Order: sequence, then C-alpha cells, then structure tokens
Amino acid sequence: MENMLLHITYDGTNYSGFQIQENASTIQETVEKALGIVYKQPVRITGAGRTDAGVHARGQRANFKAPFHIPEEKLPSAVNSLLPPDVVITGAERVSDGFHARYDAKRKIYSYTIDRANFPQVLKRLYSWHIPERLDLDLMQKAASKFEGTHDFKTFQVSGSGVDDTVRTLFRVDLDNRPCEQVLVITFEGSGFLYRMVRLITGSLVRAGMDRLNLVEITGALKGENASAAGPTSPAAGLCLEKIYYELNQ
Amino acid sequence: MENMLLHITYDGTNYSGFQIQENASTIQETVEKALGIVYKQPVRITGAGRTDAGVHARGQRANFKAPFHIPEEKLPSAVNSLLPPDVVITGAERVSDGFHARYDAKRKIYSYTIDRANFPQVLKRLYSWHIPERLDLDLMQKAASKFEGTHDFKTFQVSGSGVDDTVRTLFRVDLDNRPCEQVLVITFEGSGFLYRMVRLITGSLVRAGMDRLNLVEITGALKGENASAAGPTSPAAGLCLEKIYYELNQ
Repeated sequence: MENMLLHITYDGTNYSGFQIQENASTIQETVEKALGIVYKQPVRITGAGRTDAGVHARGQRANFKAPFHIPEEKLPSAVNSLLPPDVVITGAERVSDGFHARYDAKRKIYSYTIDRANFPQVLKRLYSWHIPERLDLDLMQKAASKFEGTHDFKTFQVSGSGVDDTVRTLFRVDLDNRPCEQVLVITFEGSGFLYRMVRLITGSLVRAGMDRLNLVEITGALKGENASAAGPTSPAAGLCLEKIYYELNQ
Repeated sequence: MENMLLHITYDGTNYSGFQIQENASTIQETVEKALGIVYKQPVRITGAGRTDAGVHARGQRANFKAPFHIPEEKLPSAVNSLLPPDVVITGAERVSDGFHARYDAKRKIYSYTIDRANFPQVLKRLYSWHIPERLDLDLMQKAASKFEGTHDFKTFQVSGSGVDDTVRTLFRVDLDNRPCEQVLVITFEGSGFLYRMVRLITGSLVRAGMDRLNLVEITGALKGENASAAGPTSPAAGLCLEKIYYELNQ
C-alpha cells in the first residue's frame, strides 16, 4: 500500500483538537471519515502534531496507507469535496513506506497571534488573544531570547502528558509587531514541543511584557527552579501550527 | 436627549444584515437590545450603511438619542459587556442634535477581499471570496479605473431598492495585491453606493481579470447600454464596510 502524506489546514474553533477521541468532533475523525468515503473502506491517519481544542493549523501533516492508488494531484480535491469548509487538504505526496508523520518530523513552527487593539478586532477574534494592556516589546524580546536554545522545558508543559524526555531545542522565538494590523505575532521554531508548551511560554512572555516577570525568573524556570514563571496558559485561539519540516535543509 | 454616534464593528457571518427585520437576527436588533439594557428602555439606532446578510464591518456608524447621560468613554465597554463576541463597539462620541448617521455621511469606504490561493485559505474563508483561477491584475486595474468618477450606476445595482437617483461618484477603486497573504484587496471609496453595487462591480472586475469582459463593455454598461457587463454578484463574505467620512477634510 502506498504511504501518502497529506497537507492539512483547519480552523480549530469548532473542534476538540486533532486527535480522535470518543464523543467529540476532531480533525482526525473528520479527515478519516472523508478518506473512508474516497477509499470505500476505513482509513487511519497519523498526524504530525496533536493540536489541542481550538488550535488552528496552516501546516499540519498526516500520513496514511492508501488502500489503492489515487494520483497525488487529484487526492486533495477529492477529499475536500467531502470535508466541511473549515478543514481543507492543500496537498498530498507519496512518501517512503516507513515514513511516519510524527516521528520523522525534524522541526515545527507554531505562530501565536496577539490582538493589541483597544477593543477586540472582531474579524480576528477567532484567531488571536486580545490584550489591550500595554506590552513592552523590548522586554518581551529579551524574554523570548532566554527561551531560545536547548533547555529542559519541564516547567513549561501541562503535566500528565506522560513524556519522559522534556529537553527540547527552540531555534528561534521571534516577535513580529505589525502596527497596521494591530497584532503581535510570535513565531516559535523548535525541534519539538511539549504539551501546551507554546501557550505557556506565550503566557510568560506576556507577563514579561507587562513587567510582571523578569529575566532572572525565566532563567530560573528553565533550570527547573521557578515553576511560577510558566504561563498562564494563553488561549487556544491565538495558536496556529504553521509548518512541519522533515528535512533540515528545507 | 444627547445624540450619540457609535463606532460599530461586526462579523456579519451569522447575521441577516444590519437592518432590523422580522424573524431574523440582525446587527441593529443586537445593538438595540444591548442599549435597551444599558438605558433600561427601548433605544432605536440609525445605521450609516445597511450592510447585507453576511457582510462585515470594521467601520460602521450609527446614531441614537440617549435617554440619559453616560460618558462617551464609558459607553463602549458598557455595551460590549452585553453584546455577543461578534459585535464590538469601538467608540462613541456626542454629535450635534440634528446629526443623522446615514444622511450626513459624505464618503464611504468598502473593501472586498479575494483569496487567490489554490485551495481556500481556511482561516480566511469567512472573510473572502476564493478564486483559484488566474487573474490578470493589469486588466483588472484598467477595468477598475473605468468605474472611477461620476457615473449613473443603475446597471450596477440589484433592482427593487427603490432609489431614484442612481448617479454616484467613485473617488477610487484600488487593487492591492498581497502575494505573501495570497489575497487581493479591492478598495472602493465613494460618495455612496447602490444596493449590491460593490459586489456587482467586483464580479465585473473578476470577469475582466479572466479576460471575459472588456473595457468597451464596461464603458457601455456605465452608459446604460450593456446590462450584461454587471456582475455576477460576488459573495457577501468578502465585503467589509471599512469607514464612513462625515467631513470631507478628514
């Protein structure tokens, strides 16, 4: 059976996350249902990132074993015609038999969008965290730099995720302030991410921007000495899985 | 009674337009209901632009006679706390007693957003018209220029709106192509707009961009000689009321 990799985009607003679960509408279930109709038999997909309830994706990937051959250029449209408008397949490619969308991911990029307008920007409300308070971007950028590099991020996860190795590398944590749009977009590129890690770090960065968390506290937290420096967990709406890299030279 | 002018923003997706009507959820009804609670008595508002079902606004205005004094800087938050998240008041100001939000409007700006990606951009689907086909922007810009100026736009309206004078002035019809976002934003600034005029002109511009409508046909339509040059009516989702000018030197 051919191993196929899908490029999946979705508005997570109305879903209980990516991963399939009982009695809840998920992205995985939605895509599997459409693939099941296309291939006329049950199909299971393996997602690259298990995005949480309400989190969006412009660059999710998932692989599956195709019961029979459908040309990769025809597959997206065939599946999209069976999907609701908030889930769209934007590409498909054949990959090697052993390829695994999650285990083979080398890097991931997430973005987090903060709406800085005085009142919530109504057309961005589903895709951002509204913070009307003043944020010191200089302080935030300095705090962001502290997170870059290889650290034990065990303080910056929601426990119970059952992961043993909590060391990850963040290649960059960039702040992109866009005054015209009145948004601040924070980009996280990393080797991998713990459960709620981006949302907890974002919460810490916002506290830093309000001068309620300093660099020493962050450094301490990254040494496991200051759990109170993590978070609060920022809202799911602002988070978007942007990209998965499978080759480092992409 | 003080005459107050509200700045109203909304996501029109779940509304049957601005203007109040029986058995339908409208922006006007929603705002009036919230104001009725704030002022403890029925309040009627007069909107500047009667946006259609599904059309959005970042710059709607509406005035009303306030039963009693509430400071203008406190009014938005008071009303917002009673509004659903898809309608947000972003400002309030006291205006002269005779001020009328619709009749006193000097100019209006609408934007229309076209999603040019191959597959619909899922986080923009509620706020754009997806056109994956190739558009010749040079042809579109030339067509747009033909609409600028003072014309009888009677061909570019949906009839039955009961307007006698169909002469309007379009000060500009600008195309802003944004390759990074894969969108084309068309901005219309005019003295006023007929019913569905922006959506019909947008439909014509798209046909021009596909080389299915030429400049001679557009010129003819503006002289009332070629009704088939108008439209199709583009989808409501792409349209947004951006701004109302009450003074020409704003």
